[in-house]
Amino acid sequence: MNDFMYYNPTKIEFGRAKENNIGKYIKEANIKSVLLVYGTGSIKKNGLYKVIIESLNKYGISYEELDGVVSNPLLSRVKDGIKIVKEKKLQAVLGVGGGSVVDSAKAIAVGAKYDGDVWDFFINKAQISEAIPVFTVMTLAATASEMNGNSVIMNDETSQKYSISSVVVNPVVSVVNPELMASVSKDYLAYSAVDIIAHSIEVYFTATLHPNFSSRIVESIIKTVMETTEVLIKNPDDYDARAEFAWVAIQALNGLTPAGTEGGNFPNHMIEHSLSAIYNVAHGAGLGVVIPAWMKWYESKNPTQFKRFAKEIFNEDDSSKGIKKLEEWFVKIGAPTTLEAAGIPRNGIQELAINANELASLWGIDDIYTTNVIVEILEKA
Amino acid sequence: MNDFMYYNPTKIEFGRAKENNIGKYIKEANIKSVLLVYGTGSIKKNGLYKVIIESLNKYGISYEELDGVVSNPLLSRVKDGIKIVKEKKLQAVLGVGGGSVVDSAKAIAVGAKYDGDVWDFFINKAQISEAIPVFTVMTLAATASEMNGNSVIMNDETSQKYSISSVVVNPVVSVVNPELMASVSKDYLAYSAVDIIAHSIEVYFTATLHPNFSSRIVESIIKTVMETTEVLIKNPDDYDARAEFAWVAIQALNGLTPAGTEGGNFPNHMIEHSLSAIYNVAHGAGLGVVIPAWMKWYESKNPTQFKRFAKEIFNEDDSSKGIKKLEEWFVKIGAPTTLEAAGIPRNGIQELAINANELASLWGIDDIYTTNVIVEILEKA
Repeated sequence: MNDFMYYNPTKIEFGRAKENNIGKYIKEANIKSVLLVYGTGSIKKNGLYKVIIESLNKYGISYEELDGVVSNPLLSRVKDGIKIVKEKKLQAVLGVGGGSVVDSAKAIAVGAKYDGDVWDFFINKAQISEAIPVFTVMTLAATASEMNGNSVIMNDETSQKYSISSVVVNPVVSVVNPELMASVSKDYLAYSAVDIIAHSIEVYFTATLHPNFSSRIVESIIKTVMETTEVLIKNPDDYDARAEFAWVAIQALNGLTPAGTEGGNFPNHMIEHSLSAIYNVAHGAGLGVVIPAWMKWYESKNPTQFKRFAKEIFNEDDSSKGIKKLEEWFVKIGAPTTLEAAGIPRNGIQELAINANELASLWGIDDIYTTNVIVEILEKA
Repeated sequence: MNDFMYYNPTKIEFGRAKENNIGKYIKEANIKSVLLVYGTGSIKKNGLYKVIIESLNKYGISYEELDGVVSNPLLSRVKDGIKIVKEKKLQAVLGVGGGSVVDSAKAIAVGAKYDGDVWDFFINKAQISEAIPVFTVMTLAATASEMNGNSVIMNDETSQKYSISSVVVNPVVSVVNPELMASVSKDYLAYSAVDIIAHSIEVYFTATLHPNFSSRIVESIIKTVMETTEVLIKNPDDYDARAEFAWVAIQALNGLTPAGTEGGNFPNHMIEHSLSAIYNVAHGAGLGVVIPAWMKWYESKNPTQFKRFAKEIFNEDDSSKGIKKLEEWFVKIGAPTTLEAAGIPRNGIQELAINANELASLWGIDDIYTTNVIVEILEKA
């Protein structure tokens, strides 16, 4: 096992009706005012907004609002939020929604303590040292943003979808109530499942050292997400399936699975961000396209782990069957696995590869992921 | 899944030579003075004491010492420590050793903020609300005390081995360097393995609701501890085996595995504390005696999970074979599995059962674990 530091200070409040307590959790942290960040209106239609406001009022937490966060969240909206926080001297940010909302909340929280352009942190021009506290109430389980320090934001001027990662934006408290996730569309359920699997396999396959126990946890996550997704497709109201889905989504990217590993990276995400940035596909949909293609390209670089994956997940001895069965499962649950299925023209591959190579460069993996290599991978899609 | 709150603020610094940084970790937490708690001298023989002192000196951390902590740590020594902390106004406690040392450090940390008798917390006479910070450098992996809020202390006047559990004594930083654990005796390696398995199975078998993912994590822990123990018996210097052993020891009792479960309790520990209290057997040795006996007694109450255990761990279809094979494995690694093997006379069963029933009462499980039931269980040992 490699040396590592494990630290995750986020408190998870998991269970039915816990969104009613959000005001209490915020008050207990000695916060008196928040920026309430949310999406394009569903929380007003389904009554969650009302519950949140009532709770904030009950515990004497004052608030300003920033709505209109979209899937593939925009830097421009983050900057609007930073402005409000600074003007009104708000003490914390509360994100109510899915990964896009929470990632926006985190970027706002960091920008609130910075005099310069918050995008500086996304392009390694500045290092994050502080942020105001973040709280969340989750309405979608996929990104694990509720229990990590990651934030992925789309710069709408430059078409770059980049990220930051810092424990200072691990949420203080995250409310995870599976009931709030039950109304997710079948599409987004599928995209979420793919995202969770992506989080699980990135380091699992790319690490030069991947301890046995870590592999077992990853395999437990993948098996559980596959089983619960199939239950939820048939019965979206199955609480226990929704709850386990939500919990393994968190475990897939909260620091547990890479502990002790060495050398892993996130090439599927690196490539997918370009698909989202240029074609505005949902993150999980883009991953469904990239993952099988990337796996086919990468297999020969880590045959042992691909063999293990095929055996443990699909009881197949042949690793190429493992990749094939994963791709078939993505199709079965309704995620696209080809550029065509995702509405991306093949003549767009070069542009995508150039965009992805820039991110690869920022992540220090452009020696492997040259533009040509990324083209080669995408052509398998 | 049941509702739950998950919160574990401990930072784990895992890896080679990290004990050299303990002064830095303490200084980063704005602590200037500590009570250094340790055992009966091995850290002076093996050089670790010198490394710790050098690090404290390097970072300007002043300290007082409390040595002499024994396996099955004594309340009297804890009280000595509280006295020193209060007199010298020390700001934190640093435990360097195994579970007994760290549990003593935690009890001291709680007592330091309390005007009454710290034993009040162990008998539910008072509720813990605060403690001074705790830091650890681990020399043995078994209890997971490095990443939880538990402390088990033996009241030397009353022969009661009771516990507290509070997040306020989750260590701030725990250093886990597998190299510091390499010199553990074969006996203590075996006892540690049994303790880790005990932590894994208590809730796994006794919960009325045990989600699939949680069971998978438990099974991953058990399989990994069994494999690494066998490697370490042959080759105590195998770093990777030692490291995985240490990491799964932590995962077995840091709050992860019971998340979402309902109704579980710790009967094996409840009974074992009496064996330690009255006959001063090592905790893991006592568990080796209790576990097979308890499993035989409990099997019919949760046949599904016992069947699952036998299948997943031993690839056996018959659950009684699963219990038999676990007992055989305990014997194979050198842990006692009968009262005789642990040096406990059969005519002591009644006294043990009465002692254990008192703890069962404190834990609210004495409706099931009456004195007669505990006698019945121990007679199977």
